[in-house]
Amino acid sequence: MNTITAPLSSAEATLPARRPAAWHVDASQPVHFSVRIAHGLLEPANPLLAQQCGGTRHTPQRRLVVVDRNVDALYGEALRRYFDHWRIQATWQVLDIDESHKTLEHALVIVQAMERMGLLRRHETVVAIGGGVLTDLVGFACSLYRRGVPYLRVPTTLMGQIDAGIGIKTGVNQGGHKNRLGSYFAPAGVLIDPGFLASLDQRHLNNGVAEIIKMALIDDEQLFHALENTVGHMAPGAWAAPGGPLAAVMERAINGMLAHLIPNLWEQELSRSVDFGHTFSPALELHAKPVLLHGEAVAVDMALSLGLATGRGYLSQDEGVRALRLIERCGLPIQNPVFNLALLQQALAQAVQHRDGQQRLPLPGPLGHCVFVNDLRPEELANALAWLTHYRASTERLSA
Amino acid sequence: MNTITAPLSSAEATLPARRPAAWHVDASQPVHFSVRIAHGLLEPANPLLAQQCGGTRHTPQRRLVVVDRNVDALYGEALRRYFDHWRIQATWQVLDIDESHKTLEHALVIVQAMERMGLLRRHETVVAIGGGVLTDLVGFACSLYRRGVPYLRVPTTLMGQIDAGIGIKTGVNQGGHKNRLGSYFAPAGVLIDPGFLASLDQRHLNNGVAEIIKMALIDDEQLFHALENTVGHMAPGAWAAPGGPLAAVMERAINGMLAHLIPNLWEQELSRSVDFGHTFSPALELHAKPVLLHGEAVAVDMALSLGLATGRGYLSQDEGVRALRLIERCGLPIQNPVFNLALLQQALAQAVQHRDGQQRLPLPGPLGHCVFVNDLRPEELANALAWLTHYRASTERLSA
Ligand SMILES: NC(=O)c1ccc[n+]([C@@H]2O[C@H](COP(=O)([O-])OP(=O)(O)OC[C@H]3O[C@@H](n4cnc5c(N)ncnc54)[C@H](O)[C@@H]3O)[C@@H](O)[C@H]2O)c1
Ligand SMILES: NC(=O)c1ccc[n+]([C@@H]2O[C@H](COP(=O)([O-])OP(=O)(O)OC[C@H]3O[C@@H](n4cnc5c(N)ncnc54)[C@H](O)[C@@H]3O)[C@@H](O)[C@H]2O)c1
Ligand SMILES: [Zn+2]
Ligand SMILES: [Zn+2]
Repeated sequence: MNTITAPLSSAEATLPARRPAAWHVDASQPVHFSVRIAHGLLEPANPLLAQQCGGTRHTPQRRLVVVDRNVDALYGEALRRYFDHWRIQATWQVLDIDESHKTLEHALVIVQAMERMGLLRRHETVVAIGGGVLTDLVGFACSLYRRGVPYLRVPTTLMGQIDAGIGIKTGVNQGGHKNRLGSYFAPAGVLIDPGFLASLDQRHLNNGVAEIIKMALIDDEQLFHALENTVGHMAPGAWAAPGGPLAAVMERAINGMLAHLIPNLWEQELSRSVDFGHTFSPALELHAKPVLLHGEAVAVDMALSLGLATGRGYLSQDEGVRALRLIERCGLPIQNPVFNLALLQQALAQAVQHRDGQQRLPLPGPLGHCVFVNDLRPEELANALAWLTHYRASTERLSA
Repeated sequence: MNTITAPLSSAEATLPARRPAAWHVDASQPVHFSVRIAHGLLEPANPLLAQQCGGTRHTPQRRLVVVDRNVDALYGEALRRYFDHWRIQATWQVLDIDESHKTLEHALVIVQAMERMGLLRRHETVVAIGGGVLTDLVGFACSLYRRGVPYLRVPTTLMGQIDAGIGIKTGVNQGGHKNRLGSYFAPAGVLIDPGFLASLDQRHLNNGVAEIIKMALIDDEQLFHALENTVGHMAPGAWAAPGGPLAAVMERAINGMLAHLIPNLWEQELSRSVDFGHTFSPALELHAKPVLLHGEAVAVDMALSLGLATGRGYLSQDEGVRALRLIERCGLPIQNPVFNLALLQQALAQAVQHRDGQQRLPLPGPLGHCVFVNDLRPEELANALAWLTHYRASTERLSA
């Protein structure tokens, strides 16, 4: 509903017009898109991808397809066969993808591709196929080009399929800060084919699992149990298979994530439980050597936060230790040498800026629920670090 | 209203979850802001500016204030006095402003200023004070920083006060194209003090008048008459004075502009009557030597479009000539040497891309109304050019 509360001009009125000279703009921007799990997305007989980017076999269409170079190496032939079948004349823009490439400069490479092909503003939906870095970059470029052109997200990593690819956030890193520039820009649709995960290496799979553990800890105790039950069986092929236990885990994770994202798409509310694990991790992503993946940094942050939560009695010792063990069994780190008290305090100060002056620190407690804290003290951080060291020492003693 | 139509996760459900694995996101982003005419904005006793950027005299506040260098030279002292009075500790970012500075690089200068001061994400409203170039740049930077921080627009040119400053569009030029990158990003508020116009030079005033003529021709016959009646009396002081005939013209123009913008804030509808004069003008802004101001290019485009409209009989010859005369009497050009048939066709092709494959050419007819055309032929452009040349020759004969 869009309203203007001052009377509108009418050709009959005599000048001067109306008083007081103030107009109140009261409008809302509708957002609609669907997120679908779709096996066999690249089988020529499957119309879904073509439909979602507006292709029909009747009239040839032009589309810009932006693909991660690694994905192109693995699926390029199938992609070309698919688009040919649907008479979509694709302009291919293959990008080298790396977190260090998530910059304004690389977003401009996509802009130049749109410019070169003379992309029409509204019906030539751009197709983005790749991990979170690629979909964030394409979403960002599409949000800016002519103030917004439609794009379709086809996430190909677990991180993308359960998190990065399913919301409306886009972004690039800037000035040494993660996602410092970005936009909220809804895609035309999201198509998730778990089949892509068959080719993902174990480290990147685990990276995505970190975000699933996050959802489990703050939102979904049953999901926590499901993870405990499947943790020994998380090979790429198992994630890719339809109908198995990991398919259920994925759906559950997506469902929980969307349930949190949708009522708060534009983040009017800054106390977000899905920010669990994302308070101290940005500093870690910046400073850890060797570099950590996003989910790995989140895992270390979650481990610390489990210490903060048990320190306050929000979680029992038992629950805290069970959660640490799950993180470790998923091949994720729980500590990092650069994570000292000074860095943690600096990270918290940065988070406070991003959360408009308050800590709004999400902590789990009890398992499957979330509490927000605004009064965390430095001693608590020190205690949580000590708790982790103690846990580590006792597990090493056990396994020795 | 934000809905998710798949059932939400509940801790009791057993895995696997639900079928079919598709979620429909259905949400809307509310936008509220007011546009106010406010004389004496910088008088310390006037609380409006302080209120709109969240300042109170009770608690000192920090704010980033981005100002056009020319405006700072003229009003910097008054601005500093005002902010001091309201205990707003302002970080000043003064920018050299020129259309050629409306670039990504200059937007990043504003981003760096936000970064340096450690701007809080939601309540430290950025204040933008200047013409359309400055408010477009600040709006763009604010839309991107942390995916959006609030900003207040204080337009100081006529162009800004009746057009550039009152909507939600932001942008920078890129790759030789006007506003090729940008966003829709509503301000927290718009405060219009016509007093600023007292220091504007006549050429920039006329530049803004071009957009008022636009509104008159496609939307408001009474406004057209009002312009005819005031055209000899458009000195800076007359625009700045409260309550006079030009104040009424300004209000009327803003009212008409908002009535068109508000139902179409995100430009879902690409057939926009306010695009009258903006089909061929971008090419002219790019190619004219010496460089034309935006409104001057719009004036030349409107003159040509009047030829197109009379050629089709949408406007009578009489109306067409009256409109041309008004444009000229407002000190605006109606022709330009680079405006030849080849450039016009190229400009139209560019507009077709921006309008998603159709011409959607707004033409006036009858006076105060708008018609859209999708089947313009090259001969019509040639005829309109000839019509202008003929008009020019006959007026020169008359004045000889
Ligand atoms: N927008 C959001 O809401 C959001 C949420 C979470 C994370 N993110 C962002 O997502 C990014 C991380 O995403 P990511 O983990 O997908 O990283 P990524 O995009 O770098 O992909 C990881 C690696 O996997 C490769 N790859 C992609 N698909 C493959 C496949 N099917 N088979 C084999 N290899 C494949 C890529 O080439 C890359 O080397 C970060 O920049 C993070 O900030 C964004
Ligand atoms: N966002 C939108 O919807 C929208 C609409 C129309 C135009 N625009 C943009 O607006 C820009 C043109 O705006 P503009 O005409 O205001 O140009 P501008 O911002 O360049 O200002 C014109 C000149 O006036 C000076 N100035 C500003 N205020 C003054 C004052 N009070 N006294 C004396 N000098 C003053 C400036 O320093 C500058 O030299 C273009 O880039 C155009 O694309 C945007
Ligand atoms: Zn994350
Ligand atoms: Zn204009």
